[in-house]
Amino acid sequence: GTGADNDLCINQAVVFIEDAIQYRSINHRVDSKSLWLYRWYYSRTCQWILSLTITLILALAFIEKPSSLTVTSDVRYRLPAWNPPCGLTESIELLCFLVFMVDVSVKSYLIGWEEFWKNKWLMAYILTLIVSLTDWVVSLSFFCAEDVRIRRILRPFFLLQNSSMMKKTLKSINSTLPEMASVVLLLAVHLSLFTMFAMLLFARTKDGQQEKEWVRYFRNLPDSLTSLLVLLTTANNPDVMIPAYSKNRAYSIFFILFTVLGNLFLMNLLTAIIYNQFRGYLLKSVQSSLFRRRLGIRAAFEVLSSLKETPANAQQSHVSVGALLQVLQKVDMDSRCKQAIMRSLKMCSCDQLSAAQFQKLFEELDKDAIKQHPPSPEYQSQFMQKMQFAFGHPYFGYLGNVVALANIVSICVVLVLDADKQPSERDDFFLGAINCFFILYYLLEMLLKILAMGLRRYLSYPSNRFDGLLTVILLILEIATFAEYGFPHPGWRPEFMGLLSLWDMVRLVNMLIVFRFLRIIPNMKFMALVVTTLLDLVKNLRAFAGILVVVFYAFAITGMMLFKGAVVPLGNYCILRKNEISWLSLVTFRLRLFSAYLLSVNLICRWTKIYFVAWWLISSVIWVNLFVALLLENFIHKWDRRCHREPLSDVEYQRTVELMFRDVLEEPTEEELMDKLHQHPHLQLCR
Amino acid sequence: GTGADNDLCINQAVVFIEDAIQYRSINHRVDSKSLWLYRWYYSRTCQWILSLTITLILALAFIEKPSSLTVTSDVRYRLPAWNPPCGLTESIELLCFLVFMVDVSVKSYLIGWEEFWKNKWLMAYILTLIVSLTDWVVSLSFFCAEDVRIRRILRPFFLLQNSSMMKKTLKSINSTLPEMASVVLLLAVHLSLFTMFAMLLFARTKDGQQEKEWVRYFRNLPDSLTSLLVLLTTANNPDVMIPAYSKNRAYSIFFILFTVLGNLFLMNLLTAIIYNQFRGYLLKSVQSSLFRRRLGIRAAFEVLSSLKETPANAQQSHVSVGALLQVLQKVDMDSRCKQAIMRSLKMCSCDQLSAAQFQKLFEELDKDAIKQHPPSPEYQSQFMQKMQFAFGHPYFGYLGNVVALANIVSICVVLVLDADKQPSERDDFFLGAINCFFILYYLLEMLLKILAMGLRRYLSYPSNRFDGLLTVILLILEIATFAEYGFPHPGWRPEFMGLLSLWDMVRLVNMLIVFRFLRIIPNMKFMALVVTTLLDLVKNLRAFAGILVVVFYAFAITGMMLFKGAVVPLGNYCILRKNEISWLSLVTFRLRLFSAYLLSVNLICRWTKIYFVAWWLISSVIWVNLFVALLLENFIHKWDRRCHREPLSDVEYQRTVELMFRDVLEEPTEEELMDKLHQHPHLQLCR
Repeated sequence: GTGADNDLCINQAVVFIEDAIQYRSINHRVDSKSLWLYRWYYSRTCQWILSLTITLILALAFIEKPSSLTVTSDVRYRLPAWNPPCGLTESIELLCFLVFMVDVSVKSYLIGWEEFWKNKWLMAYILTLIVSLTDWVVSLSFFCAEDVRIRRILRPFFLLQNSSMMKKTLKSINSTLPEMASVVLLLAVHLSLFTMFAMLLFARTKDGQQEKEWVRYFRNLPDSLTSLLVLLTTANNPDVMIPAYSKNRAYSIFFILFTVLGNLFLMNLLTAIIYNQFRGYLLKSVQSSLFRRRLGIRAAFEVLSSLKETPANAQQSHVSVGALLQVLQKVDMDSRCKQAIMRSLKMCSCDQLSAAQFQKLFEELDKDAIKQHPPSPEYQSQFMQKMQFAFGHPYFGYLGNVVALANIVSICVVLVLDADKQPSERDDFFLGAINCFFILYYLLEMLLKILAMGLRRYLSYPSNRFDGLLTVILLILEIATFAEYGFPHPGWRPEFMGLLSLWDMVRLVNMLIVFRFLRIIPNMKFMALVVTTLLDLVKNLRAFAGILVVVFYAFAITGMMLFKGAVVPLGNYCILRKNEISWLSLVTFRLRLFSAYLLSVNLICRWTKIYFVAWWLISSVIWVNLFVALLLENFIHKWDRRCHREPLSDVEYQRTVELMFRDVLEEPTEEELMDKLHQHPHLQLCR
Repeated sequence: GTGADNDLCINQAVVFIEDAIQYRSINHRVDSKSLWLYRWYYSRTCQWILSLTITLILALAFIEKPSSLTVTSDVRYRLPAWNPPCGLTESIELLCFLVFMVDVSVKSYLIGWEEFWKNKWLMAYILTLIVSLTDWVVSLSFFCAEDVRIRRILRPFFLLQNSSMMKKTLKSINSTLPEMASVVLLLAVHLSLFTMFAMLLFARTKDGQQEKEWVRYFRNLPDSLTSLLVLLTTANNPDVMIPAYSKNRAYSIFFILFTVLGNLFLMNLLTAIIYNQFRGYLLKSVQSSLFRRRLGIRAAFEVLSSLKETPANAQQSHVSVGALLQVLQKVDMDSRCKQAIMRSLKMCSCDQLSAAQFQKLFEELDKDAIKQHPPSPEYQSQFMQKMQFAFGHPYFGYLGNVVALANIVSICVVLVLDADKQPSERDDFFLGAINCFFILYYLLEMLLKILAMGLRRYLSYPSNRFDGLLTVILLILEIATFAEYGFPHPGWRPEFMGLLSLWDMVRLVNMLIVFRFLRIIPNMKFMALVVTTLLDLVKNLRAFAGILVVVFYAFAITGMMLFKGAVVPLGNYCILRKNEISWLSLVTFRLRLFSAYLLSVNLICRWTKIYFVAWWLISSVIWVNLFVALLLENFIHKWDRRCHREPLSDVEYQRTVELMFRDVLEEPTEEELMDKLHQHPHLQLCR
């Protein structure tokens, strides 16, 4: 081939390897210009701009007109929220839309015309953009005074389509839907049959006691349905049955049956079904990531092998080491990995690499990032060596824990003693003196540890960093307190001075001390296991959280539209479940919605009911169950692995989900890889 | 051996086979008299008397002095409960104790002295009896006026020790306790750290709004702890944060963090841990049952083989068919199994049986009870055959479902129309006429089905039995209505006559019709799966339910003792979670406890708190999680199996847990069996 051809091949290999590193699909155009565009599109700057745009368009809701983001949430006290002039948010929106249009065109171009028609996400993206732009034009032509803004509900879509993890998770959830729908149907049948029973059982009679039940909860069909639906959320248990129960204890059988069947059986069945569907979810997702990585590496090998004909046998393709070195220099990857690959290349000392050797070189990518702590300093003097032994010993750390505990207990005692005192009666001397002593001890502990371990080794442990940072902050706070208010003495109770009052300062110090106490966690084995599981879970949960944000956002915007300005007398039978709702209002920072809920009017009561039932089903029932399923999955994997883990040593592994499953993952076969490569829409392989 | 020896061997074999059938341990005395006693003790009559005694002693609580089992639960209206004279319940108790003493002596004698010392359950049984008897004597000497009756709390133990399933389950729960305790400890740490944060955050200030939060929820350490504990049960969410949230939205971060960490993570972690521990529980329990069965059969083989020396080779022991037949005649077992074994014995036509053959014969015990429906009658006439085809067709069943649905809808419409009418305005003509028509259709459907399938085949389907029974009851009710009130006509609204008013009759008919609608369940595939899972679960849950009853009983009795006669003003901050409590009062049929709770006084408030926190932990947290774990286990097994199940045919399998696991169970090896047999404390095997 000519020099230009060679360059193209090298560039293709570079992009394929980068795809492999990032677990991306390799099904994109591979000509020179497209490759440049592709690398530019996936460069850090471009992706960062895209993320920023998405954040920006989502954040617009906080300053747009019906928002009420103020410090207090009380309608009586809060100041009117800032109202941006018409055109400000709209121009920001237009800017965002322009970025999205560039994004969608580049994406569509890169995957090519044929693939584009198969990609429903891209089509939906374009459709969303068209609808949003039309809505934007309508909005401007009404001078921002229009009633409904459809584009707001569509906004979370931009977040959704940008994350492959979220799309994958959504697909998983989607495949669970038929079974979930069956259980929800079962719940509906359960609910309606029991509603009919209830209406027959608690019909209007001339009996005063039974009449009460009827008047309050089973007056008509919608009321009865609502009463029992709320009983399913356990929010009105046992109020709903008290009138009937007062009359005859036997009525309780009805309610017990309903609750046991509905709450204990059907609701937990939903958990079981969702868990059953999600059992393989993590494994499958990691398996497909592995396949993408192997495929990218193999694709790079194939294009590099077409670069030069190997002299000896034409049956097995080979890649020259020189070409690979050229590629490696251009690839944007973790420097540790790059060095490791270079090192093994030098060690192999061969000229040509087979496919297997090539694949093996890049296995460095899958390996644990081994973190070696720097060594302790070596002291010459006998005394210093003894000091080092004493303060580097784990017992010194335990002593620190005991002191921290003592500090906590002393704060607790002071809190209990001072609980009922008026602010003017308080004497901060005792607590000030105690804290001063403890903070000095913390400082000493930190310094001695640094002496024993050396600064670099000290900082290489996360627990020490946490400890040291808090100690330094505490020290600064304490010094500031003394500078402002003088040293503690009996009757130490000066008035408000500067930014924070002394009382606030002391409270802040105490809170930090309580927070610092968390350093004991890694010392307790089971707690450490739990905490690492939770941290792992948080990593794996990002996609779920993203989808949750999407759902929350859509719900909040819908709620805003439905209940705009509806602050009206309390309709008692409109109340569903306070917990869910408050939560809703909190997370979406929307107070008006909350008051609309609390003060909902009969007129919109039906809509409110449907809205909140949907909200309860999605947030409480489905999402919580998904969460439980993931937690079970994670925890059981972790637990099984705990037994055959090496004991904690100086070498820390940074475990990722991929590594957790390594021993159960299946390597893709050569045939699978080549099959997939031959299906590539843009790459023509010679063989 | 002599004739007496032979008889002993035969009897031993009989008892061992009966042990195998009932999955009992074979470690009991094996001499003639003991065997007689053993068979007598495990005879149906004896076991029935024992169960009756246990029920009786547990039921005593309903009529004993502090009970309040009346129809209404309202303190204002209810009549004084019947108060048994001193000595009545006490003499019943003594009778029960006597039965238990016989029980414990027989049991102790049968397992032998050596085993007795190893058996902690038996020792605890004796101890409980001694304490109960002492308490009984004290009680009588005070003429039933004593304050505390310890023996009441001990009563549930008698239920516990009588069920091997419950003991096994308890052991499983016991082995989960360390992990559960760790999570509960974690919860406690979480709670206490957040309590300190809260007390520092919501300290008393001069600010009115913040003061509110302090006054209501965080006044002192116990208050703060309670507030946050209740927040963990989500009962006071969002009330607890509204005052602070009103002042500054940022305060909500504290509550969100607390709830997410505590409720979403730690509580679900408990589910995960319990599920993880119980994953193997069912399998393990079934595996050990299988071992007991094989061991019993093997023991029978060994004693029978010692009966006669086999002539040919002394290395392999054999059993003569004649001896086995003798044993089979004496064994008390399912006649179907017995016949099947006899049949295979005849078919084998050999004289001697090896151990493997012997074992294989008794595999009949493990087999599904295949239920063949009786055939339909064969009609001669062409017309009857056509009728049979038409009404035996599934479509006829579907038509019946549609008609039942139409009936439900019509009732629903009438209910909605009549919802707000006064009882005196109601006209029952429409509903009466409609129901009359539908019930006639149901009768016709039943008769036609019987015609098509024949009575025996019709009755062999459970759904038909359900259907037919309800139809007959409906018919009787309808005829009674007409006899009493005449045929329906406009303005059909006679006054109260006889046992039930017309209105009550109509309501009862409607309820039965709604209930009959459940016949659609087996027609819907997913619903059928769910319902069979739930039914299976109920079978497996008996042990759990038993333990729950034990816990409920102990709690109810403790509650009675703690809150005896405490009907005092409402202490607001004593309230924990209404749901749990009401439940408690319902299930234990104890009203006074409930009112004591609602009207709990400051004096006993601390105790109440501890009592209810313990109650919440055990009933809501641990038991519900155990239930979820079992449901997951059952459902996932069922679900996995659903794919490779044969399509529904005329042959119905009566599946038990043992059968569900059959393909994963491991057969015990010969060595394991013989090893265990040689460890038998009373049986001396020659070889």
